[in-house]
Amino acid sequence: MLPIIDFIHTNRDRYVQELGTYLAIPSVSALPEHRDDTRRCADWTADEMRRIGLEDVQVIESGGHPLVFGQWLHAEGAPTVLIYGHYDVQPADPIELWESPPFEATVRDGEIYARGAADDKGQVFMHLKAIEAHLRAGGRLPVNVKLLIEGEEEVGSVNLDDFVRTHTDLLAADVVVVSDSAMFDRGVPSICYALRGLIYYQIDLRGTSSDLHSGVFGGAVANPANVLAQILAQMKDRSGHVKIPGFYDDVRPLADDERAAWKTLPFNEKKYRKDIGAPKLAGESGYSVLERVWARPTFDVNGILSGFTGDGAKTVIPAVAMAKVSMRLVPNQDPDRIAAAFEAYVRKVCPKTVELTLTRMHGGRPWITEYNHPFVAAAGRAIEQGFGRQPVFCREGGSIPVVSTLTEELHAPAVLFGVGLPDENAHAPNEHLDLGNFHNGIVASAVFYDEVAKVGK
Amino acid sequence: MLPIIDFIHTNRDRYVQELGTYLAIPSVSALPEHRDDTRRCADWTADEMRRIGLEDVQVIESGGHPLVFGQWLHAEGAPTVLIYGHYDVQPADPIELWESPPFEATVRDGEIYARGAADDKGQVFMHLKAIEAHLRAGGRLPVNVKLLIEGEEEVGSVNLDDFVRTHTDLLAADVVVVSDSAMFDRGVPSICYALRGLIYYQIDLRGTSSDLHSGVFGGAVANPANVLAQILAQMKDRSGHVKIPGFYDDVRPLADDERAAWKTLPFNEKKYRKDIGAPKLAGESGYSVLERVWARPTFDVNGILSGFTGDGAKTVIPAVAMAKVSMRLVPNQDPDRIAAAFEAYVRKVCPKTVELTLTRMHGGRPWITEYNHPFVAAAGRAIEQGFGRQPVFCREGGSIPVVSTLTEELHAPAVLFGVGLPDENAHAPNEHLDLGNFHNGIVASAVFYDEVAKVGK
Repeated sequence: MLPIIDFIHTNRDRYVQELGTYLAIPSVSALPEHRDDTRRCADWTADEMRRIGLEDVQVIESGGHPLVFGQWLHAEGAPTVLIYGHYDVQPADPIELWESPPFEATVRDGEIYARGAADDKGQVFMHLKAIEAHLRAGGRLPVNVKLLIEGEEEVGSVNLDDFVRTHTDLLAADVVVVSDSAMFDRGVPSICYALRGLIYYQIDLRGTSSDLHSGVFGGAVANPANVLAQILAQMKDRSGHVKIPGFYDDVRPLADDERAAWKTLPFNEKKYRKDIGAPKLAGESGYSVLERVWARPTFDVNGILSGFTGDGAKTVIPAVAMAKVSMRLVPNQDPDRIAAAFEAYVRKVCPKTVELTLTRMHGGRPWITEYNHPFVAAAGRAIEQGFGRQPVFCREGGSIPVVSTLTEELHAPAVLFGVGLPDENAHAPNEHLDLGNFHNGIVASAVFYDEVAKVGK
Repeated sequence: MLPIIDFIHTNRDRYVQELGTYLAIPSVSALPEHRDDTRRCADWTADEMRRIGLEDVQVIESGGHPLVFGQWLHAEGAPTVLIYGHYDVQPADPIELWESPPFEATVRDGEIYARGAADDKGQVFMHLKAIEAHLRAGGRLPVNVKLLIEGEEEVGSVNLDDFVRTHTDLLAADVVVVSDSAMFDRGVPSICYALRGLIYYQIDLRGTSSDLHSGVFGGAVANPANVLAQILAQMKDRSGHVKIPGFYDDVRPLADDERAAWKTLPFNEKKYRKDIGAPKLAGESGYSVLERVWARPTFDVNGILSGFTGDGAKTVIPAVAMAKVSMRLVPNQDPDRIAAAFEAYVRKVCPKTVELTLTRMHGGRPWITEYNHPFVAAAGRAIEQGFGRQPVFCREGGSIPVVSTLTEELHAPAVLFGVGLPDENAHAPNEHLDLGNFHNGIVASAVFYDEVAKVGK
């Protein structure tokens, strides 16, 4: 391993340069105006795979933004590792809050700033560089590898499930590795063993055929903005409990050993609160912050719009009101069952004085695995070499819908090791990635392939 | 009177042409980009006053958009009529819903379409043309007249109160006439004897210093959009009753004779509902539609904005959320007292997990007068001549804040006779004015000056 790790240390600066080029491509999958950029980013990813020595590299049409696939299968008898990641990124808005341009990677104080730095191009690139190090410095890899890098993670991986289901031979592997999550904290490397799922809806209400004068009509017609507020307010009670009937039926209770282990984690609630700039934390009563974000489902309004929102005052009763809402789900909630319960509840609480339209958007299943699996332990040893410290075992509040699809379809366990940090603003202005973690992550990834080889098939 | 009325009939088409020119000036007082247009409209109004023979015409600086004043005081011994109106208009948005350009007057099926046609340029112009008819066809007016046409009615007449208080000599009159309201219905001319008042607020909430990933943080922080919905939902109960403590304390109960009289009005609830395109009417239980809009106070959300509102889905917890809200007030509610009660209630129901900012915007006092006053009776006779039918006595749901200021400061009664119709989309796309009512209104106004002269001082 030493020549490979030496190679990684020697090339540290080049990796940052190359990552900057990758981050400069505005592959915003949600916005039609970035469609060509997103495709360009797929091509760049494929070219990079070829450059580092992967084989059978293809940009695969998926119906939406393409997938990128590559592999190296010359480690006969050794296990096969499937690495999943995504090259698409979140929209950059509100762009005025960025301190440097979102698509011009800028290094400040050992961090690289750009949309996608942490989520997920930086972490995809970490694996590419670990593979490159083996192939360049060692001439081979100790395991077989397959890479599947998609372009629709930020829009719900809408075409990926079908692709996985119809390409189980192409993707067949002994272990799936996903690096699209955050470390527990700076200096605290982690392995994630559970993810929340997601359902996302747009709620549209129409009260009247056009906006009305609030003096002439106020008091005699339903105001869809008032009604929308009433509907949304009925989603949670004062103690943070979601009121949709049946919502908690299938929630797997937190195990005593999980609760105990999480209490030992170096979590500073005051710092957490200050970092996000909240006057006071909030959430479901009876649960700690970590329990709330890792093991409990939520209901959040992601956007809301109605009526006059410019400067000044307009005395209008809006004709329509719109909200985007989402629910984070935990094991063992079923997205379709929760979606049905949500729809039924909204239809029940919505008065007949407005027209209601519910549009289901993207989503994903929650996922959980056991953390004593041999491949998970292998990842633990690799992380210890990369970061000089044993990883902690965490859950993650976010959703990576493909993890449950891959593990179910390929009958393989998944190892989630991320090198982002919780305060690196994934999905917000000034997203960044710590370059120390990026570098250590390349070392850990390179070691991981060796450790997986030691475990064997 | 006959030559004057003949003159009005003869000039019918010219009036429509001239009104079109007036409506073409986009005097949107709320929007800074229309500041110059609004001043141009003041100048046009003043020029028109001079053209028809008014004297001492001035465009008066008010601190915001200017006032226009003119008078004719040669009817010695006769009463003085002060005519109030406004030359400013509401914003035209959403502009895509207009069937013809909002600032290009278009006549279709006997209606003139443009922003300001009904509210209030058409009705101001009606009085100008009635005065013109007297001065051109009769060489004089039977009463003294003063006109005060302001440019800030749609932004709460912010500078008018001060002007009225400091110019009571200039404005001194025996009766105030305001034509800025609607007839009860097509073919049902009306005199309005009460108006609702208004307070208007912007509510701003901040949860965190920037938007957050809803997976990573969802469940552990207050979402300001959820909190805003909860606050707004607590403003009214399910029966449409406003929940602000003390809100109804000073509401003057509906008199039995008012309730009885309103029941005889030709009101078709089904048609009303269909006209506005509502699936079902709503409102405070225990009150009819007319009672709800004329005699009961309301709480309405006029606008709301938070988070991601574009196409698609963004899994974000918004940092901020904003709502514009207003309350229509009825006699004898005091705006300052209700504002204090509202602020105290919002501060009480708003959790400490968000930062709350309340900004009070424009408003006005409710107003009511007796409908058996001699000048009101004079208006009734004039309207009967103009429209061929006795007027009904109504209240009005909208607010004309200056009415209470003028009546209180000048110790004069007010007569509110409007020629708009309730479905003419004041404050909404496709605002229009019935040209028959416009014409009959000119006749009625011209007759009104005669009838006031007969009443005497």
